[in-house]
Amino acid sequence: MTPLAERVLAGDPRAIARAISLIEDEDPASGEMVRCIFGRTGQAYLIGVTGPPGAGKSTLVDRLVGEIRSPSGQGPQREQRPPRVGVIAVDPTSPFSGGAVLGDRLRMQAHAQDEGVFIRSMATRGHLGGLARATGDAALVLDAAGTEIIIIETVGVGQDEVDIIRTADVSVVTLVPGTGDEVQALKAGIMEIADIFVVNKADREGADRLVATVEANLALHAYAGGEWRPPIVKTVATSGHGVAELAAAIAAFREHSRAAQQTRRKTRSEYRLRKLVAQRFMAHLERDVLAPGELAAIVDRIATREIDPYSAASDLLERAGLKKTT
Amino acid sequence: MTPLAERVLAGDPRAIARAISLIEDEDPASGEMVRCIFGRTGQAYLIGVTGPPGAGKSTLVDRLVGEIRSPSGQGPQREQRPPRVGVIAVDPTSPFSGGAVLGDRLRMQAHAQDEGVFIRSMATRGHLGGLARATGDAALVLDAAGTEIIIIETVGVGQDEVDIIRTADVSVVTLVPGTGDEVQALKAGIMEIADIFVVNKADREGADRLVATVEANLALHAYAGGEWRPPIVKTVATSGHGVAELAAAIAAFREHSRAAQQTRRKTRSEYRLRKLVAQRFMAHLERDVLAPGELAAIVDRIATREIDPYSAASDLLERAGLKKTT
Repeated sequence: MTPLAERVLAGDPRAIARAISLIEDEDPASGEMVRCIFGRTGQAYLIGVTGPPGAGKSTLVDRLVGEIRSPSGQGPQREQRPPRVGVIAVDPTSPFSGGAVLGDRLRMQAHAQDEGVFIRSMATRGHLGGLARATGDAALVLDAAGTEIIIIETVGVGQDEVDIIRTADVSVVTLVPGTGDEVQALKAGIMEIADIFVVNKADREGADRLVATVEANLALHAYAGGEWRPPIVKTVATSGHGVAELAAAIAAFREHSRAAQQTRRKTRSEYRLRKLVAQRFMAHLERDVLAPGELAAIVDRIATREIDPYSAASDLLERAGLKKTT
Repeated sequence: MTPLAERVLAGDPRAIARAISLIEDEDPASGEMVRCIFGRTGQAYLIGVTGPPGAGKSTLVDRLVGEIRSPSGQGPQREQRPPRVGVIAVDPTSPFSGGAVLGDRLRMQAHAQDEGVFIRSMATRGHLGGLARATGDAALVLDAAGTEIIIIETVGVGQDEVDIIRTADVSVVTLVPGTGDEVQALKAGIMEIADIFVVNKADREGADRLVATVEANLALHAYAGGEWRPPIVKTVATSGHGVAELAAAIAAFREHSRAAQQTRRKTRSEYRLRKLVAQRFMAHLERDVLAPGELAAIVDRIATREIDPYSAASDLLERAGLKKTT
């Protein structure tokens, strides 16, 4: 047990922030730390919130946090005291515009007096699968620290985001009327991952048409008896309208899916394991098998068409001691 | 040389379609086919077009194809005859809504009489990195078949899409006014990959504000003398307004970046090679090292917190014959 891991388990906010920074920086110490805390994880409920840019996800998540923390609020976990909430905002901010830290500060203000809320942005590192792994490890840190509800918020509808959200316990897909091609937004791989749809900015023109479009898409799918049919919740995040209904829908889904949750968590574990093994193998190949600069030389030969990438991959695997896998 | 590869090299449209289907299905024959044609690739110019859903990318790309094919048109490659154009629309359509094939048909109609245009959607398979690899291989097929301009169009601004677009010869980022949080769209990791910005639907309210926002972001970056500063092109794709200017901007960028293009192509080659090696290693691990069901059993032990993912990954790599890489 490392000192940092001990402080994370004790729920020390500064230790949590430090641990997540180590993860974000891909510091080797972060692996050891996650190993130490891993046995104390698995208690938190993960809520994934995604949708296209401009859908008002940040505001919606802030309102949802307020609702979950409110003494009279709805929520997926309701006991004597409101549950502790963590927010991981997966923020593909470029170093160029560098808005993540400022954004964190602005967002924290709304919950500044509330010790039961932790908000953190995770920035893209451009690494293959790095963001998904970092997000998963950050959730483990919050989980081990006693955070009962973890909200993972992602901008965009790309494969990486879909992968992140797919492995949450519940997936909330946020749509917004008036972007013109609502159907295109629906096409973007999100229909099958949504457990709950939110039509945010529902006071805008076109909101009812968007709800009808989602309904029409849902109608294409024959839901078996007892199967969860994603509800569509209309919200106006800026005013808080509909946020209690969203919290109630999340609570209802949690209740409905107690059994299926284990399957999802296995999917999440498998996804993480695969990513990790592939990443470690590549590191081994570069560090222990190839000479410095050798990978670059092979890449040059591919660029000049001397060798094709499939043959190059076979050669590399053979040199790493694997038999030919063409 | 396989018969299919021969027909691809001869430019047979049905062979091209068949080859891309093999790639999309991850058919083992596709690797052999790509190996055969690889030596004849590297001539095409790759244009990446991305942006949030609803930005009107499809219409814009269709117009751009028309412009490039027009006898009097602007374009990045202008000779006696207009260059052959291929479009790969990376379409994360869910099997649920299944719109890709219908979309292809609708889009093909605009260029149905033009044998110099090939349009194809690539659907997400949910595989790790599968889409980026499939897109790259499909581009190789079009390239080998003599397609001079290849446009890769992606929906979304996720990491996978960024990875795809980053490796194109030129990256066009399409924005649209009126989605409310323009700045959020700009944050989404796209500022540093854009070679050209398009503000589409420029006849809408807020277009000038969006242009000003992009300008303000560009102003944060000190462009050295001779360094390319991304231009902002205003378009109305539905009417064709601004499309000639976009084609001219692409041609100007191509001229400006002849030297840097080789670096980009190496990045693309390296990206593909890494993905391929990692994927092959995982396949080897599951097929040759682990007993059937063994990976699932390890995942179960992670899910129940008996073992942490980092230790599990180390064990797997050790069993594959690698030394401990903790």
